[in-house]
Amino acid sequence: MTSKKVIELFYDVVSPYSWLGFEVMCRYRHVWNIELKLRPAFLGGVMQGAGNKPPGLVPNKFLYMTKDLNRLSEYFGVPLQAPSDPFEAMFQKGSLSAMRFVAAVQEREKGGDEQVERVSRELWRRIWSEDKDITAPTSLSEAAMKAGLSDSEIKEVLKLSTSKEIKDKLKSTTQCALDHGAFGFPLVVCHVNGKPEVFFGSDRFELMAHCIGERWLGPQPDKSTAKL
Amino acid sequence: MTSKKVIELFYDVVSPYSWLGFEVMCRYRHVWNIELKLRPAFLGGVMQGAGNKPPGLVPNKFLYMTKDLNRLSEYFGVPLQAPSDPFEAMFQKGSLSAMRFVAAVQEREKGGDEQVERVSRELWRRIWSEDKDITAPTSLSEAAMKAGLSDSEIKEVLKLSTSKEIKDKLKSTTQCALDHGAFGFPLVVCHVNGKPEVFFGSDRFELMAHCIGERWLGPQPDKSTAKL
Repeated sequence: MTSKKVIELFYDVVSPYSWLGFEVMCRYRHVWNIELKLRPAFLGGVMQGAGNKPPGLVPNKFLYMTKDLNRLSEYFGVPLQAPSDPFEAMFQKGSLSAMRFVAAVQEREKGGDEQVERVSRELWRRIWSEDKDITAPTSLSEAAMKAGLSDSEIKEVLKLSTSKEIKDKLKSTTQCALDHGAFGFPLVVCHVNGKPEVFFGSDRFELMAHCIGERWLGPQPDKSTAKL
Repeated sequence: MTSKKVIELFYDVVSPYSWLGFEVMCRYRHVWNIELKLRPAFLGGVMQGAGNKPPGLVPNKFLYMTKDLNRLSEYFGVPLQAPSDPFEAMFQKGSLSAMRFVAAVQEREKGGDEQVERVSRELWRRIWSEDKDITAPTSLSEAAMKAGLSDSEIKEVLKLSTSKEIKDKLKSTTQCALDHGAFGFPLVVCHVNGKPEVFFGSDRFELMAHCIGERWLGPQPDKSTAKL
């Protein structure tokens, strides 16, 4: 038996392509011989740190992305739906408080990342499926409740999420992504023979599988396996 | 027997990702039930028309693309190698004369696109594998010679390539790409049930196969079939 390859997934719930990458990696953690490490970070900080601009500012690119996300949503089996005002949701409201909240969930959770996974998914569902807010404390609480956290846990996480400790943790994870060469999310870092192999976006899984010596079965491996 | 689906491939030999897309589509024209239409166009015109900026201007993105192209080169079986000065090659020297030359080859060629395919490939090989010029008439002649054109054919194509007819043809193909929503190359337009399905880049082939009801066998389908 070979040891599991460690794969880090840097993401932000404001990013729809991150949602696709997140679901695929969460599925493949049960298919490939890997240890998945969820690395919630802040996309705004990565864009600023890398001097990058959001792709949606070019009109043709924005139109294409809308279409692309619709097609990928169906093919990946992820219920993506653009918010009514994507620019307001992504750039004016943003995700700083949401990602601090996710970082706080991770800080509190011991011996696993089930809560981080479920809370992240519920936040994506709010912004990228149900056109709901993810900035207000009540929004974060609602997402956490749906993710199965108790009232007292939520209270604790909310408090922790505004602490200096968590602000610094989110900054440091974001910096770590930048150090790996990030200019956007999702960013997947595969540790292969002690060397990081970095993949940007949600369209390099087939190549990633090739690099880590695993087999790509499409974005819905359970369905794919059922078909084999 | 169902009728072949028409697929248009818009490309420019200055674009390395276009080379990957070009080789994949040229391979799949013998695997899928499709009619591939090569549409040589001018990337500079698309970028300007769409108000887009080259991705390589963000330093982290440039470093990533270099690494990404290296990995894809091996995985796709396309001998990509960056020119010693990519900025000079891509933005200062550019590809206007080369793409007019390809458009002229296409204009002359009757009943097929073998010459267009081979000349395009030889131009890519020059700029994106051998670090050679693709702007001077002698460079274009050399590429065409390697592609199997005769001296008299080359002379004719060179003359035709500076005509108003060909300049207009390249403009019109470029405009057609913009009308399909292009903001970069390669752009693949699949005509499915009378509706165009547009794909940008060289990382949507699996999704494209799904959309046109074909099977994706990886970027090297011959190798893949041999393995099955």
